[in-house]
Amino acid sequence: MVYNFLVKDIESNLSQKAIGTDKGLAKIGDAIVNLTYSVAKSVYLTKNTNSKAIVRTGTKVGKKILAEALKKAGMKDFARSRADAHDMADTVEAIVAYIWITEKMSIKEITDFLIEHLEGDLNSRIEEIAGARGAFVSLLNFIKQFLPDNKS
Amino acid sequence: MVYNFLVKDIESNLSQKAIGTDKGLAKIGDAIVNLTYSVAKSVYLTKNTNSKAIVRTGTKVGKKILAEALKKAGMKDFARSRADAHDMADTVEAIVAYIWITEKMSIKEITDFLIEHLEGDLNSRIEEIAGARGAFVSLLNFIKQFLPDNKS
Repeated sequence: MVYNFLVKDIESNLSQKAIGTDKGLAKIGDAIVNLTYSVAKSVYLTKNTNSKAIVRTGTKVGKKILAEALKKAGMKDFARSRADAHDMADTVEAIVAYIWITEKMSIKEITDFLIEHLEGDLNSRIEEIAGARGAFVSLLNFIKQFLPDNKS
Repeated sequence: MVYNFLVKDIESNLSQKAIGTDKGLAKIGDAIVNLTYSVAKSVYLTKNTNSKAIVRTGTKVGKKILAEALKKAGMKDFARSRADAHDMADTVEAIVAYIWITEKMSIKEITDFLIEHLEGDLNSRIEEIAGARGAFVSLLNFIKQFLPDNKS
């Protein structure tokens, strides 16, 4: 995006916490996570359903799924200290928004990455939780290269 | 997007109602509307705030705002008959998703269009409702050229 000026203040003092605890970034990231996951799920189900039916769907990715993904990716340092699941989910969303605004990954690239890393039967709620969590762990691990090393 | 196959069934029998009443498209469009409006609002407030502070924010666009935009754009025929505000908002979201999936407008183009057509003090809730409604009326009027003429 050419909206990089939206993170100029964060970049002037860049740290893991500056990105991961920004509430505005989390709000923008919430919509990015829901959009990319919804399209990824639609594509995945369309490709992996025997009936050849086209599936269009939208699902909000639960806070718990995102919080667990942050922990499994070993990125709790991006969240505020004593962060609960809600805070940690916000942190994942803020990181995704930062990556998108700074043009490290486009919506299409995030979506394609999720499609590639989804697995299991997404029509089963239990399998979907594991599948979505795994895909977001992979995404966070991939994104690390674009993020600062200093914690705060 | 290169995900056009997600609307192959709709395109095989293309009509205003086929697009505007699709529940899956509405779910995908919900995230597109929220993402583009959130970024547009952030950019607009950052550019129009005297303090020069950078504003990052996210706002869900209310169902009532979208329903009124559909009516003002004269596009009620895209919704199901006897549609309530919720149905009509879903119709706007489905139309936006269709436009994006078929690559008529990118996320950036939708966002830039909203930025250009927003007006008023978005920090005032009343002015924001009018501003957001006006921007979506303009967007729908612009989008008409990409939509079919036949109703059903």
